[in-house]
Amino acid sequence: MPSYRAPLKDMAFVLNDVLRLEKYANLEGFAEATPDLVAAVLEEGAKFCENELQPLNLPGDMEGCTRHPDGSVTTPKGFKEAYRKFVEGGWPGLTMPTEYGGQGLPHVVGFAFEEMMISANLSFAMYPGLTAGAVAALHATASDEIKNTYLPKMVEGVWSGTMNLTEPHCGTDLGLIRTKAVPDDDGSYAITGTKIFISAGEHDLTENIIHLVLAKLPDAPEGTKGISLFVVPKFLVNPDGSLGERNAVTCGAIEEKMGIHANSTCVLNYDGAKGWIVGEPNDGLKNMFIMMNAARLGVGMQGLALSEVAYQNAAAYARERLQGRALSGPKNPDAKADPIIVHPDVRRMLMDARAFNEAARALAYWGGLMVDLTYKAESEEERGTADDIVSLLTPVIKGVFTDLGYLNATQSQQVWGGHGYIRESGMEQFVRDARITMIYEGTNGIQALDLVGRKLGQNNGRALQAFFRIVGDFIKEHGDGEMAAFSEPLAAALKDLQAATMWLMEHGRKNPEDAGAAAVDYMHLMGLVALGHMWGQMAKAALDRLADGSGDRAFYENKLKTGRYFMRRILPETATRLAKLRTGAEPLMALDADAF
Amino acid sequence: MPSYRAPLKDMAFVLNDVLRLEKYANLEGFAEATPDLVAAVLEEGAKFCENELQPLNLPGDMEGCTRHPDGSVTTPKGFKEAYRKFVEGGWPGLTMPTEYGGQGLPHVVGFAFEEMMISANLSFAMYPGLTAGAVAALHATASDEIKNTYLPKMVEGVWSGTMNLTEPHCGTDLGLIRTKAVPDDDGSYAITGTKIFISAGEHDLTENIIHLVLAKLPDAPEGTKGISLFVVPKFLVNPDGSLGERNAVTCGAIEEKMGIHANSTCVLNYDGAKGWIVGEPNDGLKNMFIMMNAARLGVGMQGLALSEVAYQNAAAYARERLQGRALSGPKNPDAKADPIIVHPDVRRMLMDARAFNEAARALAYWGGLMVDLTYKAESEEERGTADDIVSLLTPVIKGVFTDLGYLNATQSQQVWGGHGYIRESGMEQFVRDARITMIYEGTNGIQALDLVGRKLGQNNGRALQAFFRIVGDFIKEHGDGEMAAFSEPLAAALKDLQAATMWLMEHGRKNPEDAGAAAVDYMHLMGLVALGHMWGQMAKAALDRLADGSGDRAFYENKLKTGRYFMRRILPETATRLAKLRTGAEPLMALDADAF
Repeated sequence: MPSYRAPLKDMAFVLNDVLRLEKYANLEGFAEATPDLVAAVLEEGAKFCENELQPLNLPGDMEGCTRHPDGSVTTPKGFKEAYRKFVEGGWPGLTMPTEYGGQGLPHVVGFAFEEMMISANLSFAMYPGLTAGAVAALHATASDEIKNTYLPKMVEGVWSGTMNLTEPHCGTDLGLIRTKAVPDDDGSYAITGTKIFISAGEHDLTENIIHLVLAKLPDAPEGTKGISLFVVPKFLVNPDGSLGERNAVTCGAIEEKMGIHANSTCVLNYDGAKGWIVGEPNDGLKNMFIMMNAARLGVGMQGLALSEVAYQNAAAYARERLQGRALSGPKNPDAKADPIIVHPDVRRMLMDARAFNEAARALAYWGGLMVDLTYKAESEEERGTADDIVSLLTPVIKGVFTDLGYLNATQSQQVWGGHGYIRESGMEQFVRDARITMIYEGTNGIQALDLVGRKLGQNNGRALQAFFRIVGDFIKEHGDGEMAAFSEPLAAALKDLQAATMWLMEHGRKNPEDAGAAAVDYMHLMGLVALGHMWGQMAKAALDRLADGSGDRAFYENKLKTGRYFMRRILPETATRLAKLRTGAEPLMALDADAF
Repeated sequence: MPSYRAPLKDMAFVLNDVLRLEKYANLEGFAEATPDLVAAVLEEGAKFCENELQPLNLPGDMEGCTRHPDGSVTTPKGFKEAYRKFVEGGWPGLTMPTEYGGQGLPHVVGFAFEEMMISANLSFAMYPGLTAGAVAALHATASDEIKNTYLPKMVEGVWSGTMNLTEPHCGTDLGLIRTKAVPDDDGSYAITGTKIFISAGEHDLTENIIHLVLAKLPDAPEGTKGISLFVVPKFLVNPDGSLGERNAVTCGAIEEKMGIHANSTCVLNYDGAKGWIVGEPNDGLKNMFIMMNAARLGVGMQGLALSEVAYQNAAAYARERLQGRALSGPKNPDAKADPIIVHPDVRRMLMDARAFNEAARALAYWGGLMVDLTYKAESEEERGTADDIVSLLTPVIKGVFTDLGYLNATQSQQVWGGHGYIRESGMEQFVRDARITMIYEGTNGIQALDLVGRKLGQNNGRALQAFFRIVGDFIKEHGDGEMAAFSEPLAAALKDLQAATMWLMEHGRKNPEDAGAAAVDYMHLMGLVALGHMWGQMAKAALDRLADGSGDRAFYENKLKTGRYFMRRILPETATRLAKLRTGAEPLMALDADAF
């Protein structure tokens, strides 16, 4: 059976030593988030994730969700009880607005709790994850009436949320959706259509489910400019807040999937269901993207969190499994064999994951901090830069973390040999669960196009310039002594990224297919630089702590060793990414479509 | 529902235009294998695989195998009938020795049929695949009495074979096995122990199952030098060849696995089962490795075959799925969207798989031809070189083909977006099935150690020198004109491989951990060079055919386009492999084992 221990020490290192949250104590929500309070919250959160959620992960995968003939869906054994504890513990509202009953803690702290939940049980974490996204979208765009009707119960966690975009014939290309919204005399709309792949679309965890649905008004323009956003509750809500009649939205089927079996993925049939418009007509895609962007960062976190738990279980197995002898001579001479962690190639698989996990955690939490600063920083300039960074890094975190999360889950499974292919090991579940993260909330190819086609050029490249400045300044300031082992490879990687950017500027404008062909390599190149930059930041923090003699020396020395692995063994991949990108679209497009 | 069309034209291209089988018509078995006969055999084989095996693949995955309370195992619906047709069609004995009823066709032809079987249905293909390995081991090492008892029925296919190595506490490190073989007065041995992960260990397809089992004699030396090989039939065989009493080997459980659900993976309990020794006492590992080496090439073929079928289904989806518009303007202006094959990033995923598949097919079949020449070539020198090449390339084909097969299956699934995550698409099955190929018959890490630790140095590096000479001569002879686009990148890749070899010679001898740390990167480097060499060979063949004006011009031009994609987009990865390898073991081993 797999296990999970929340990496609290690593999390505290990022929050306190690297991001230095205490610097932001002047900002709303941060004042309360003292290191002690954050540590206490995360420790409680860790207990909940380790003791309540993790033990349900493998059984939940085996059992899956069940749809009953009346269209109702039950989650696997134990999920309902765990969800009740989740609500009782006040976890749903951790970072949510205080005006609707949330605790208003910084998002960066919420990210740490989210990581633990996902590592323990992705399928479970998705239910509140979708609610959080729906809350964010409603909070930003809905009328006060809608907010007052739905948000308090959603923040409390007794109602949950979903996002309804995909239809059988369209996923990426939402301009093609067919779901209709016909206005009614009472100000509501009758929603009719079929939505597929709706995560947490129907289940037994909450009293009500609040669907955010994209649909078209009768007079809507063609394409993406004619999409509106609607809130459609499973149960209508009476004026006094009590639940009224069942709305005409039903679960037609749950999908049989490769993984995340304990999350119900539904076909939802809307048959004149009553809904209310959120924001302005035909503004739906923009409004849904508030939810989508939050979700994309969350999915990036899933890549990290699955890589982390898979790594932990691979490391534990590698320390225990006796097989063969070290190439340098027996390490365990009294036994018949050494633990397999003595083998360099086993180390390679473990270190690839570990060196990614630690940098990805720092980068994701930095992203979380930037989300906070977007709203809370004191100057407009700081808010603008934070927003730029979030906007730029969202597709990178989603795309790169999930690609590497899947590879690391695969390599961690590999450490287990044949035993990792057996379901009860839990290792193969991590791989199957990780696989969806590369697909949903926009495939990773779409993330790359978002980065290259939209984010790079926005505001004359302001975000990219900010990112280059941050990384470039760091390199300039930390070129000497022990930091050279970090700043020099980082400088080389940044140079590759800048060369790739130049190439894109020269070629992508003339031939958009060159930009499309380069997109995924460019996204990974930027991801490597961003992760390398985080290793620079972490190395600096570790060296500072070693110099001032405080804390656990071995912990900081291990940070440096792991960081040097990243700089030497992973970061140099930027060169191949650059070489591939520079081929342009020609080799990809040379064949006629019907030659395939 | 997924589909499969055997790539007969590509296969014929490799056999006739690239390997030019007609050159070997003077050799036993090759004389009969005229292009026309081979084409007819493969066409019949394709019909069987496409019409009988492929339709059972997805249902077989859904249903899996069932173990009954009496220990018997039934395969999924339709498997028994398909196997009956397989035997009736004479397919089991295609390349098997004529003296035991086989047809004695060259292995290179058998490889093509094997590829089709695996693409259509890996789980099914494993049953006869294991039989073929067992036949090879018995044929090479068993006494005439054993051969006469078992081989005719195994060659006919009415009995099947298995290989029994792994035990709960040991897989890679076979020196640790505990299964005992105690001599009986009648010349037989009583075998007692537990074997796990035994593919095709118990099933309903054949009348008898012939287990090849590693066990230790009572006086056996410690470790791998004390292992002997035994043949243990499920039913004892009477002197007249009829089946006698049930032997004391039973299926204790079938494993619940990530994939290959339609192949029964058994725990086999030997409880004093009657067995007979194969070859000399304590020579078992060497004898089992005859089966293992054949199996490793077969597993490499699995990587290719799954990549091929996944690619085919991704290409079909990409041509049909309408979503979005080409970056260069609508390609399908009358419809609301273009097929997704217009997008460069979709092309990238398809071309990565296609460019691998075509070169891997050539390399695998070349390997198959070398297997034939090992036994059949006229001069000792030719036989020796062929043997060297097979020995060198076996771990490369196993390790590289399965790593890339899994990645290509994953990328092909990615082309399907969310629909690829749903079981009925069949795309996720290809990924789950491909995953085992990186693990069984020796993990890919073990393949790399076999290459670096054993194969490189054997006979003073004779095999490696032969490989370098073959590739180097090709480059020298084809440096000009249109071939420069192939020979120049190949020369650069070969230079990287030679530099890596020098690095290994300098460092690996002093510090074996440096060799261990470099092994997987070295294996992939060699794989890239070997695949690049095959693209060179294929380009040459295509240009020759274009020059002489025979055949389908578009087919040969597409070969060149696909090959140029490989040379420009895939082969340059050798540089990163070399850079990683040169870091040595230090960054991998820097952490203490208990820091993990």
